[in-house]
Amino acid sequence: MHRFFVPEISEAEGEVQVKGEQAHQICHVLRLKPGDHILLVDNTGWEYEVEIAHLSGAMVQAKVIKKNLCATEPAVKITLFQALLKTDKFEFVLQKGVELGVSNFVPFVSERCVIKNPGENRVARWEKIVREAAEQSRRAILPNLHHVLPFKEACELARGKPSILLWEEERRMGLSAFLRSPLFQDSHGINLFVGPEGGFPATEVTYAESSGIVPVGLGCRILRAETAGLAAVSAILYHRGDLG
Amino acid sequence: MHRFFVPEISEAEGEVQVKGEQAHQICHVLRLKPGDHILLVDNTGWEYEVEIAHLSGAMVQAKVIKKNLCATEPAVKITLFQALLKTDKFEFVLQKGVELGVSNFVPFVSERCVIKNPGENRVARWEKIVREAAEQSRRAILPNLHHVLPFKEACELARGKPSILLWEEERRMGLSAFLRSPLFQDSHGINLFVGPEGGFPATEVTYAESSGIVPVGLGCRILRAETAGLAAVSAILYHRGDLG
Repeated sequence: MHRFFVPEISEAEGEVQVKGEQAHQICHVLRLKPGDHILLVDNTGWEYEVEIAHLSGAMVQAKVIKKNLCATEPAVKITLFQALLKTDKFEFVLQKGVELGVSNFVPFVSERCVIKNPGENRVARWEKIVREAAEQSRRAILPNLHHVLPFKEACELARGKPSILLWEEERRMGLSAFLRSPLFQDSHGINLFVGPEGGFPATEVTYAESSGIVPVGLGCRILRAETAGLAAVSAILYHRGDLG
Repeated sequence: MHRFFVPEISEAEGEVQVKGEQAHQICHVLRLKPGDHILLVDNTGWEYEVEIAHLSGAMVQAKVIKKNLCATEPAVKITLFQALLKTDKFEFVLQKGVELGVSNFVPFVSERCVIKNPGENRVARWEKIVREAAEQSRRAILPNLHHVLPFKEACELARGKPSILLWEEERRMGLSAFLRSPLFQDSHGINLFVGPEGGFPATEVTYAESSGIVPVGLGCRILRAETAGLAAVSAILYHRGDLG
């Protein structure tokens, strides 16, 4: 069944309306018909199964069949601070990150980033990727996509929550040791910094440390930039019992 | 430093020779010169740092600078039984699987596979992807790529080792419960079955169960076929202390 995030669902006498882009998609792209069932999620955690009654490209009128509280959000809120990567790699991280359960994305520009400024069209495309992945993977809340920050501002934004930075040269602290330490133990959220293709320079690692961000290693194999974050997200969710 | 898997390294008086495809790559593709250093891995776990002495497209003669036992292989050997996926998705699973630490890949054809027969060129490309990812991620042993099997033969091949099948409808057993159970606890290897884009039909899940393969769930979000295996591989390695 097709599933859509809609800005807000106002239910009146068991009927709801869908407007804007979603109405266009339902009517003209997917060509759904009266009688078809769809799922609407309003970003408060409620999921509505509805039956289409009338539709045009501008508005879809539908009857509520049932309403469930959607319990698919991980208990631990992961904010993935991801350095800009080449186009397809960055989009890949967004899509897979949403599926796995990332709650917030903060793209940032690091010294070794090849791409420094993604442009408006690119950001609109990122938002679309996040929304579609959230619809497909049954997320209850649409993950938030922050605007692009310079590295130092990203470090600033991370203050006040347990924060780690994946670094292939880190030998003192592994991810597992951090997650088991008092630094994270009972926390409801974590900030995860992942560098660009060329990795973080030592100067940025030092700066991050001075902002309270802990460098951690992911073992002895060298993961590509677009793989490291997703491996760490999987491990964090597994650690907290949220990946089966 | 560039890193190459070579069929076998025969060292004589501190000198080694590289022939075939790797010699061609060193000479004509990467255009390395006498004096350049490269790393050679012979698939027994030894890694040689060598300095190029003479080279032609047919043969590279090099002096051994040092020789280390390369300790990057995970203690737990994961065999990823992956149903054929659309081209780019399957290649993605191979590349990321090698980086993360998969030891063996067994591609198989399941009822809902869109692609049933990859063809010879495709298999050669897969082998190249595996080798390049192993070189880049510093694997000590080149992961093995099995030829494509029908689903039932793949189940047969899995006998004798703890085996799981990721199934989005499984609610009884999660991945974590399996990994903590006596079924896996002290095992040095695990077989992991992942289905195609459309998932496994219930008949295949039943067949797998009758072959001793345990269906497990990965939590309540719906992961795409190409994401599920990599999330599970990350979790298994993390569980065994092999991901930081």
